[in-house]
Amino acid sequence: MEGKTYPEFSTHYPLLLKTFMRRPVSLYPNETGVVYRNPDTGQYHRFTWREWYERTCRLANALQSSLGVKPGKAGEPGDRIATIALNHHRHLELYYAVPCIGAVLHPIVPRLSLDHITHTIKHSEDKVLFFDDILLPLVEMLYDRIKPIVEKFVYMSDGGGIPETKIEPIYDYEELIKGQSPEFDWPYMDEDTYATLCYTTATTGLPKGVMYTHRQLYLHAVHLLAAGAWATDPSRPHLGDAAVPMVNTPFCHANGWGAPQISVFSASKIVLPGRFTVEGFCDMVQTEKVTSTSLVPTMLAMLVEYEDLKKYDLSSLVSIGVGGAALPLGLKAKAEELIPEFTASSGYGMTETGPVAVVASTKRYMRNWTKEELDKVRVKTGLPIACLEVDIVDENSRPVPRDNETIGEIVMRGPTIMEKYYNDPERTAQVWRDDGWFHTGDVAKIDEEGYMTIMDRITDVIRSGGEMIPTVLLENLTATADFVLEATYVGVLDSKWGERPLALIKLVPGATESEEDIYRFLETEGVDKGKLARWMLPDFIALTDDIPKTSVGKYDKKTIKNGIGEFLSKAKRMREG
Amino acid sequence: MEGKTYPEFSTHYPLLLKTFMRRPVSLYPNETGVVYRNPDTGQYHRFTWREWYERTCRLANALQSSLGVKPGKAGEPGDRIATIALNHHRHLELYYAVPCIGAVLHPIVPRLSLDHITHTIKHSEDKVLFFDDILLPLVEMLYDRIKPIVEKFVYMSDGGGIPETKIEPIYDYEELIKGQSPEFDWPYMDEDTYATLCYTTATTGLPKGVMYTHRQLYLHAVHLLAAGAWATDPSRPHLGDAAVPMVNTPFCHANGWGAPQISVFSASKIVLPGRFTVEGFCDMVQTEKVTSTSLVPTMLAMLVEYEDLKKYDLSSLVSIGVGGAALPLGLKAKAEELIPEFTASSGYGMTETGPVAVVASTKRYMRNWTKEELDKVRVKTGLPIACLEVDIVDENSRPVPRDNETIGEIVMRGPTIMEKYYNDPERTAQVWRDDGWFHTGDVAKIDEEGYMTIMDRITDVIRSGGEMIPTVLLENLTATADFVLEATYVGVLDSKWGERPLALIKLVPGATESEEDIYRFLETEGVDKGKLARWMLPDFIALTDDIPKTSVGKYDKKTIKNGIGEFLSKAKRMREG
Repeated sequence: MEGKTYPEFSTHYPLLLKTFMRRPVSLYPNETGVVYRNPDTGQYHRFTWREWYERTCRLANALQSSLGVKPGKAGEPGDRIATIALNHHRHLELYYAVPCIGAVLHPIVPRLSLDHITHTIKHSEDKVLFFDDILLPLVEMLYDRIKPIVEKFVYMSDGGGIPETKIEPIYDYEELIKGQSPEFDWPYMDEDTYATLCYTTATTGLPKGVMYTHRQLYLHAVHLLAAGAWATDPSRPHLGDAAVPMVNTPFCHANGWGAPQISVFSASKIVLPGRFTVEGFCDMVQTEKVTSTSLVPTMLAMLVEYEDLKKYDLSSLVSIGVGGAALPLGLKAKAEELIPEFTASSGYGMTETGPVAVVASTKRYMRNWTKEELDKVRVKTGLPIACLEVDIVDENSRPVPRDNETIGEIVMRGPTIMEKYYNDPERTAQVWRDDGWFHTGDVAKIDEEGYMTIMDRITDVIRSGGEMIPTVLLENLTATADFVLEATYVGVLDSKWGERPLALIKLVPGATESEEDIYRFLETEGVDKGKLARWMLPDFIALTDDIPKTSVGKYDKKTIKNGIGEFLSKAKRMREG
Repeated sequence: MEGKTYPEFSTHYPLLLKTFMRRPVSLYPNETGVVYRNPDTGQYHRFTWREWYERTCRLANALQSSLGVKPGKAGEPGDRIATIALNHHRHLELYYAVPCIGAVLHPIVPRLSLDHITHTIKHSEDKVLFFDDILLPLVEMLYDRIKPIVEKFVYMSDGGGIPETKIEPIYDYEELIKGQSPEFDWPYMDEDTYATLCYTTATTGLPKGVMYTHRQLYLHAVHLLAAGAWATDPSRPHLGDAAVPMVNTPFCHANGWGAPQISVFSASKIVLPGRFTVEGFCDMVQTEKVTSTSLVPTMLAMLVEYEDLKKYDLSSLVSIGVGGAALPLGLKAKAEELIPEFTASSGYGMTETGPVAVVASTKRYMRNWTKEELDKVRVKTGLPIACLEVDIVDENSRPVPRDNETIGEIVMRGPTIMEKYYNDPERTAQVWRDDGWFHTGDVAKIDEEGYMTIMDRITDVIRSGGEMIPTVLLENLTATADFVLEATYVGVLDSKWGERPLALIKLVPGATESEEDIYRFLETEGVDKGKLARWMLPDFIALTDDIPKTSVGKYDKKTIKNGIGEFLSKAKRMREG
């Protein structure tokens, strides 16, 4: 491959992540490129693009020479290299050094259960594990179970040095890269070489490994950039030179929503918070003049609750993308009240789709619409990104009518959809069916203009008397009440109807509303205004401050259903089914 | 291919031009998408995106059923379909229908000599020729020579109907597509299927056929869009929904500089002028509120000379890209005086490179620079587009120093560079050498920040006493004189020095300056200010209103050199060599 030249370059110059790295280093070698603020100490670490690039070259040399990491080729993954780490410069270095030498980066979600983490490491057969100092206790708990698999461990900390631990052999990250050459001759590989392996929690069974190639990650980033070029929406993501993105989405989730690729290729100044904290968020926006970021609704809810919010200058922030779950209109309104210049739009995707697949961009003829009218568009899930074919289909794979009412499953195909679950042909066959479409398992409706609105997971839909109640419909409506901070719904077994809805509600701090107030709100704002049928109203409402959430901050319906007895015992019965 | 599904779609969903067509039709079916103004009658023709798309489907059906056009596959081109046509909706329909059924579009440059046109048709073995009504005389002149090759002719006119002619069999375009179905099931093909074949005039010998695949055209367009997303420059090309591009670059030149792909994928309203006329240009900008366009310097020079310019409202025009030749600072200054909001930046490319390869974008830290400072950057040729590797190398393939002085040949590689000259392995081997780089044959210097400035064609450089005089350096300096409209330099044989420079100068209308004034200008503005060495000054200066130009409006140095005796006889000897 090293000697690849004409005619290969003339027909198929490969789409590789190393191209993304080349750009900021050649444009802005001596300007600050990567900023990391340690969320515990508050200390800032700043690197010019050349410094960051040279660290990445040193890491690549260390991976090859000190750790013996071997590359793969198209169809045959190279060594898998796991990370258990927050969002910092070292993690971004790993995001490039590992795939660009032909190995596979496997970012682990530290909030998974020990069983699931162990499973992903065994399933992936990770050869090396890079982990953060603050996650040492977690890795020590895992150690006995994974030491038959993982050959080497690398400890990452701001201070350097290795603590007392049973883990071995263990290397210090800074020590490991220090003696290496700051240059690296990145190989030309087939663009179908695997780059990353991200596990996604399944509705049933163990996590599934989504394997991405260089080509897929490259095309995902470039198409999202193209979308940025033609967006007329003022809330379009700020990209490129002028942008200062803060990456709150954990790098370990679904390729970090594409941020490690897009922000580097754009040569933006990248701001990394370690993990999301409200205080860190505000401090970094103010200090680094952050222009844009992505949040899950739960992070936004935390921000809205933060009492010191008004003390910070957040005026540089002009674009907040919200994903991971539908953005409740109520939460959006609250954020707009509190954060100057705040606008946000929704989106949709899953690990298997790159992840970004649908974005709530507005259309040309909406240019002079009022903010109120635009907001109604922006809380829809949106339109497919330009390279994807997306349909909403019924059980016979026929597209549903564009009436903004009929619901069906979202199916997709395009160059940014994953190939397969790693070593899992059975579950791959469940999503990639013979009809040639990737089946998302998500349920949506679509309007005349092509805007889709996600209604639910197929598995989360409440099936009552042969009809489907999309829980997201109930959740979004409930969240528009100004006394509601969070709301989710699950089905409880019912001998007559099959399932009936239970609402779990967290009120805003200090609110004194009761279950009856909530029910009345749903009647007047939902039933009376034609948004809900009366039979969709919840049979049970439980007020609670602890709604279980997944590691990405989504409502964790699996956990709720597993502990349904406890929630029912707290709930008030509102009506007879 | 029709039945292509999992696992093909999951690994390699193909990058095809049909994806570009899908976007505007799904976003804006009922809005005006394509506007054509007949340059002779002044009549406007407007089509919604659905109307244009349905015409394209009808054309695809006609190509298959009525004309028997056969698709190709990767490595084996489908039937070649030639066009001799201006920029109008029909030509844009051909730009999609032909490649998207798997055949190859061969747009012919009508200004080539009859010999060259005949050669390209024979070399390409065109099966069908689509041509414009106003180009009937040209096709009649070609007819006897090409009738052994071309099986069918299609006549395109606004009025419809076929005139008296010896050409046969001949079809009327509108009649041909009328009875066809407005739907077409576009096939999924390998992305390496050939899409277009554009001939480029060579420095020596017959035109060379540059064959482009769907993948290459797709990636060219998407990377240019990505560049639009991250550009901070106010002169960045306006793309997407908000843009109204007028495509002045002929569709027959170098894939129309990517306009047929970029503007359709962006879902812009596309304005087509047939051919460039100053009156048509101004009328369409005013009527259609054109925001952006691309011109060659000669078109800009014509605009600047247009006496009715001030009568039009050109205020919508915010971006003019200038390419095809370096933009003289003097011409730019004149345009800025006359056209409100005019800003322009340079670029560089050739048919073989997609064509766009280098764009004079500015950098982040230039954001607060004055217009004067920025202009100095924008008249440099620019920075490579993000997917390309570009180097300036000396005769031993070593990169030249970044001193903005040393000149070398521009070499490139990347996913948007052509694979090969069609059926021409010898000349392919001249440009794609063993070192794995495409050799452009253009000479440039590069500064510390990576901005390159094109100095000349390797073959145009004047070699005087073992040193190289880049003619573009002389040309640009000369054009800054406010009495000079056009200026070009060629070498004339000299027994002592090998070659010495001859200047051909066209003065602005009404100017009365002499050869001596020009020479004195070069001394004071060039030599005295350190921009020129004294030995670079021209030995001869000829004042003439007729500087030969190529079909794209570049100075035609081949023709000048062929008629050098005549120009020398008009010239004044300024100094002894």
